[in-house]
Amino acid sequence: MRMYDIIMKKRDGGVLSDEEIGFFVDGVVDGSIPDYQSSALLMAIYFRGLNAHETAVLTDRMAHSGDLVDLSAIHGFKADKHSTGGVGDKTTMIVGPIVASCGVSVAKMSGRGLGHTGGTVDKLESIPGFRVELSPEEFVRTVNEVGICVVGQSGNLAPADKKLYALRDVTATVDSIPLIAASIMSKKIAAGADGIVLDVKVGSGAFMKTLDDAVRLAETMVAIGEKVGRKTVALLTNMDAPLGRAVGNALEVREAVETLQGHGPAELTTICRALAANMLFLAGKGDLHHCDQLAREAVLTGAAFERFKMMVTAQGGDPSVLDDPEKLPQARMLHRVRAPKSGYITHIDAEKCGVAAAMLGAGRQKKGDPIDYAAGITFTRELGEQVEESFEFARFYTADEGRIPEAERLFLEAVTISEEPLPEMPKLIFGRVSAEGTELI
Amino acid sequence: MRMYDIIMKKRDGGVLSDEEIGFFVDGVVDGSIPDYQSSALLMAIYFRGLNAHETAVLTDRMAHSGDLVDLSAIHGFKADKHSTGGVGDKTTMIVGPIVASCGVSVAKMSGRGLGHTGGTVDKLESIPGFRVELSPEEFVRTVNEVGICVVGQSGNLAPADKKLYALRDVTATVDSIPLIAASIMSKKIAAGADGIVLDVKVGSGAFMKTLDDAVRLAETMVAIGEKVGRKTVALLTNMDAPLGRAVGNALEVREAVETLQGHGPAELTTICRALAANMLFLAGKGDLHHCDQLAREAVLTGAAFERFKMMVTAQGGDPSVLDDPEKLPQARMLHRVRAPKSGYITHIDAEKCGVAAAMLGAGRQKKGDPIDYAAGITFTRELGEQVEESFEFARFYTADEGRIPEAERLFLEAVTISEEPLPEMPKLIFGRVSAEGTELI
Repeated sequence: MRMYDIIMKKRDGGVLSDEEIGFFVDGVVDGSIPDYQSSALLMAIYFRGLNAHETAVLTDRMAHSGDLVDLSAIHGFKADKHSTGGVGDKTTMIVGPIVASCGVSVAKMSGRGLGHTGGTVDKLESIPGFRVELSPEEFVRTVNEVGICVVGQSGNLAPADKKLYALRDVTATVDSIPLIAASIMSKKIAAGADGIVLDVKVGSGAFMKTLDDAVRLAETMVAIGEKVGRKTVALLTNMDAPLGRAVGNALEVREAVETLQGHGPAELTTICRALAANMLFLAGKGDLHHCDQLAREAVLTGAAFERFKMMVTAQGGDPSVLDDPEKLPQARMLHRVRAPKSGYITHIDAEKCGVAAAMLGAGRQKKGDPIDYAAGITFTRELGEQVEESFEFARFYTADEGRIPEAERLFLEAVTISEEPLPEMPKLIFGRVSAEGTELI
Repeated sequence: MRMYDIIMKKRDGGVLSDEEIGFFVDGVVDGSIPDYQSSALLMAIYFRGLNAHETAVLTDRMAHSGDLVDLSAIHGFKADKHSTGGVGDKTTMIVGPIVASCGVSVAKMSGRGLGHTGGTVDKLESIPGFRVELSPEEFVRTVNEVGICVVGQSGNLAPADKKLYALRDVTATVDSIPLIAASIMSKKIAAGADGIVLDVKVGSGAFMKTLDDAVRLAETMVAIGEKVGRKTVALLTNMDAPLGRAVGNALEVREAVETLQGHGPAELTTICRALAANMLFLAGKGDLHHCDQLAREAVLTGAAFERFKMMVTAQGGDPSVLDDPEKLPQARMLHRVRAPKSGYITHIDAEKCGVAAAMLGAGRQKKGDPIDYAAGITFTRELGEQVEESFEFARFYTADEGRIPEAERLFLEAVTISEEPLPEMPKLIFGRVSAEGTELI
């Protein structure tokens, strides 16, 4: 078998055999296929696509290219969730405890933030003492004891995906739905859960800019999950504006706590409940309506918040900061952003907000950059609300006041203030994709 | 400027600016652009193409990426020719002397054979003593004295093309008409001639399998030539069957001599006259009809053959072998190929013939392999002629009789013998492309 022939076959619109896909993935991992041939194939796939079977085989081979997380020592159904990445997305910290408090195990590996999007692992690390690097034994024990544990990705998970993603990132071959789907699902499959709920973000701040693309990605991922024997559901959710009112690590922990206590922003609460309900549904806790009630009650009774505290305690964090968020890292500087004119907030560009927050210290430009946990942005007025000229509508938190002017310039570009109010609030959840089909709302 | 953005722009169907193309070519030459990014761009170009302006700019930048041959010390108009590569193509050895004997200088760099196609430089080297490696001064002096000199490519000509071609060769991105056109023309432009006649081969033995593709390639190359100020004409010629009756280095020298003496195969004679006439036309020697007469007379009067002898002498070769071709390298083994059945030769697959000849020792599998100058194939019956079962219709020449069975098996696959004769002989020249337009015959 020759890589040249595989490239040419795909270039000419052919369907790759299981053996050809396996040859490619193996060659990427052992280095026998040079990067210049891989990138040529990736570009050919960008143009020609992969059919459902090819995508599932690629995913499966990438999932099996390294370590597989062994969750067999964890009792019962293991539910996982994955978000395609957004700005202000703190849902894992809310959804995980809700689901765990309903008796379904959540053994979750999360990522770090890069560019304009944050990562759950960074957010949790803003809690003093919190450890995200646990041994596999500790990880399993914590899930069995607490029902939930969130750690950073460890081990050699899907190394084929890691190599290919790095190559796609520099060769403009990221934007391919089958390749995105295979990349996400290979890691989820290697991570070992029985059921996976995908939060596919749509909008200006998301990777998928249009609903059509998001539906295709969701359908592709659900099909992969079913093919490899993992129950999979995807929700299509809005990421035109940041999720919630806070962007920045400790600021988002605080907002997660508020939401677990039942007084978080409405949109964030709604999305978290929908994600949790679907995880419970996959775990067989009843029909979707019943699962939604379970999720709601978990918040109302305080069980979910309690579970979050247990998880923080089990992972070495100081649970008292959750009762007294002033104990979270606090920024040296608070800067009030004032409305340049009166009107209604009719649009907030999530990506630009994410970049502005990163400028203030909340994010990194490249892997390994340090993060200022206290830095970020909070909105004191939300999408749809009225603002008055020169009155505060958002707050910047930073340790470096020199960065404020540029961040503010970008942030004001991100926020549209119009004379007329929004005719209606944008949809929060566009639809749901499962093995039974796609329902758009 | 970032290579990533250039790849993405082309991937999305954009038009690259002159600066972007220059950045790419410079980065390829100085190594600052990694191969995996170059191959991704090449694949994007495969799918999206390049417009006429982009193609001309790419060609020009590649032509100027290394040394430019300085032919300014050669008097008058310098005509060049290029064939896109065929089997049995010995036209340079015939056309060059015809043109030179008509008073137009031919300062030609030629290549070596690879795979199923031969190279003029190898063919000339089968003449004892012939030197193809001349200093630039010797090259210019020989052209000024004899009117013609044919050397191997020397110096650092179009290194960007060299690197990109090597990459295309292993990433299935060779078959792109703008990339093929830019590759050929960059070397021709760097080689310095004022006028270029392109012999674009069409058919089973050629790179362009269809007339449509050949027309597109010819038009693209002629447009490039005009854009960079070189007079350019392309002929579209048939390469379904090998050109002439001989395939193999010394065997082809012998056939070239016969053709220069006026008794070569009719098809070869016709094509050579057409190529020579177009070179004379570009040099301003009159209208095409007149130039055709000049070419014909150059053969009839013996002037062209005399010029070939002068060239061989000037380049260190023994001119007596041209009068007595038995002095050319002779094969140890002659094997008569007999017709497996009676009928008419209705098709000869040029590529398979080329591979069979290479097996007998006439060609190389990879760069640097040795060549047996005496080895090859001659046809004693031609396309369209009648053969009788078990009577000879071709001859193999080789030093290695062990290779005969496999070469014969392949060769017999290449030759179709049918009960019915060909209804008509295939066209030899399909058309002509010039700055004035495309005329199909």
